Amino acid sequence: MADTTDKKELYVGVDLGGTKILAGVFDHQHKCLAKSKISTKADRGPGAVIDRIARCVKDAVDECDLQMKQIRAIGIGAPGSVDPEEGKVVFTGNLGWDNVPLKKELEKLLSVPVHIENDCNICILGIYELELHEKPRHVVGLFLGTGIGGGLILNGKLFSGFNHTAGEVGHMILEVGGPKCTCGNQGCFEALASRSAIFRRIQQAVKNGQKTILTDMLGSDLEDLRSGDLLKAIKKGDKFVERVIEEAAEYTGIAVGNIINLINPEVVVLGGGVIEALEDEMMAIIVETAKDYAMTGTAKGIDIIASKLGDNAGIVGASVLAKKMSRKE
Amino acid sequence: MADTTDKKELYVGVDLGGTKILAGVFDHQHKCLAKSKISTKADRGPGAVIDRIARCVKDAVDECDLQMKQIRAIGIGAPGSVDPEEGKVVFTGNLGWDNVPLKKELEKLLSVPVHIENDCNICILGIYELELHEKPRHVVGLFLGTGIGGGLILNGKLFSGFNHTAGEVGHMILEVGGPKCTCGNQGCFEALASRSAIFRRIQQAVKNGQKTILTDMLGSDLEDLRSGDLLKAIKKGDKFVERVIEEAAEYTGIAVGNIINLINPEVVVLGGGVIEALEDEMMAIIVETAKDYAMTGTAKGIDIIASKLGDNAGIVGASVLAKKMSRKE
Repeated sequence: MADTTDKKELYVGVDLGGTKILAGVFDHQHKCLAKSKISTKADRGPGAVIDRIARCVKDAVDECDLQMKQIRAIGIGAPGSVDPEEGKVVFTGNLGWDNVPLKKELEKLLSVPVHIENDCNICILGIYELELHEKPRHVVGLFLGTGIGGGLILNGKLFSGFNHTAGEVGHMILEVGGPKCTCGNQGCFEALASRSAIFRRIQQAVKNGQKTILTDMLGSDLEDLRSGDLLKAIKKGDKFVERVIEEAAEYTGIAVGNIINLINPEVVVLGGGVIEALEDEMMAIIVETAKDYAMTGTAKGIDIIASKLGDNAGIVGASVLAKKMSRKE
Repeated sequence: MADTTDKKELYVGVDLGGTKILAGVFDHQHKCLAKSKISTKADRGPGAVIDRIARCVKDAVDECDLQMKQIRAIGIGAPGSVDPEEGKVVFTGNLGWDNVPLKKELEKLLSVPVHIENDCNICILGIYELELHEKPRHVVGLFLGTGIGGGLILNGKLFSGFNHTAGEVGHMILEVGGPKCTCGNQGCFEALASRSAIFRRIQQAVKNGQKTILTDMLGSDLEDLRSGDLLKAIKKGDKFVERVIEEAAEYTGIAVGNIINLINPEVVVLGGGVIEALEDEMMAIIVETAKDYAMTGTAKGIDIIASKLGDNAGIVGASVLAKKMSRKE
């Protein structure tokens, strides 16, 4: 493979998560040549995690028989508030980091230019570049996984606000007095429609005697529950699971309605593991509910769609960032 | 007065509301020289309303002994979706208008260039120009009156989104299943913290036997209730009214928290009749609640302030638009 790629532009995209680090090598058309994965070990502190990112990047590069010097640039999506100009992760609850000079430290280890951004910003950047061919001016991305995050493209550019934290849709209050969120508040979107919220609702109902096919599949503690299991249960006719997913989709639709009223983007894109697993079950309800909640005329011509990038959105987006930034230089 | 102004740049700012039209003549520093007011009579249709706007503008100009030909430009803030480039009011529930060529029709009647914008956009434009001297890059304005509206300045410019309707904060859902809103949904910010929502809560409680100084002041039907009466009641020690206002301030703080999480502006400005009358009673609660609901780090360095422009924000902002647009030409 090195023969066909060593004269091309090659980039590495990294998705730095709370539990795992994912790296991918991409050509200039963002085709993935190889991937590698490693656990984050956040408890070992920023220095150790940065070493592990470097290891993960080298593994991916080695996997496709390349050398680091053939890589033009590395893009990284990190959780929390990220300052791309300073190259710092300002803070992140997820990793417990505070003003970590991620760019500088990684460049020391890898001798390749590194560009960093918030992980959800990276995802919407990748989607904008690879999936939205008509380049709408204003796009909002909502990513439903264990938690819920978002990213904004306004006037064709990433918009990250005053503290580099714009797009924190997961903690938009939708239901004052609603279920407790990990952030300490109640009724956040994330506490109503994330994977954790959905699992919690199911597990609590089962504790209270609710019957579901899921316990036949996984045992009564439902410990290894995954988004895909929900799909299987619905396909087998489990009306309880279907209703829980419908509810999550309704809350998501309300959140999308709020965003249409407030920001009035041309496109709203939904992504993340929950949407990837349950797109067919959720999207029609999300679209219908969003249009019900958007004010008359505000949703006219607005597309509400699901991303097809799935779990790769992070590394693909990071490679888009790497290419974008190295062409700027 | 004509002696000192006829060689200056003079502008007229118009605030077109559902019940009244307000016009003001302004010098180039946005000092108000004269005002006039007339009822809208929306039921007579767009043609009649446009005639009344022209009459109101002429009255204001005549009031300061000027003639229309001395006016360089007219700015108008209209409710609903306004397309400034096309010069049209695309739609407005308030007036029942649909694609009304307001700019063209008024220019015919007044022979002066007319520039139009959404009324809340106009307000935030006026506040940005006259009150925010440090010109923050991103500002969100929330206006609490009979209804609740908002306007966005992003990257130093008005942001109105895909359908010219960005900033519809009033219909952000804060409490799924909450009180019914005029828009047909339940739990909108407007149904929880607008003047109408506050009045409705008080009137209902009184019907259910709640004691309040307000009934001594205004009679048991509370028909002529105004925001200023609430302030008087609180000053007289009415704990019930105080609690209702505290609740409205808490909901407003939650809405501000949502906006900080989502858009992460540098400044959030609150205005409108409710804030004008009850600033001292509400602002501290709004600021504290917003900071509680904003995610860690997202509210750092963000100012949450009250506008001092009060009821004049509309006409002042419209004069800012008029000046801005005529300098562009």
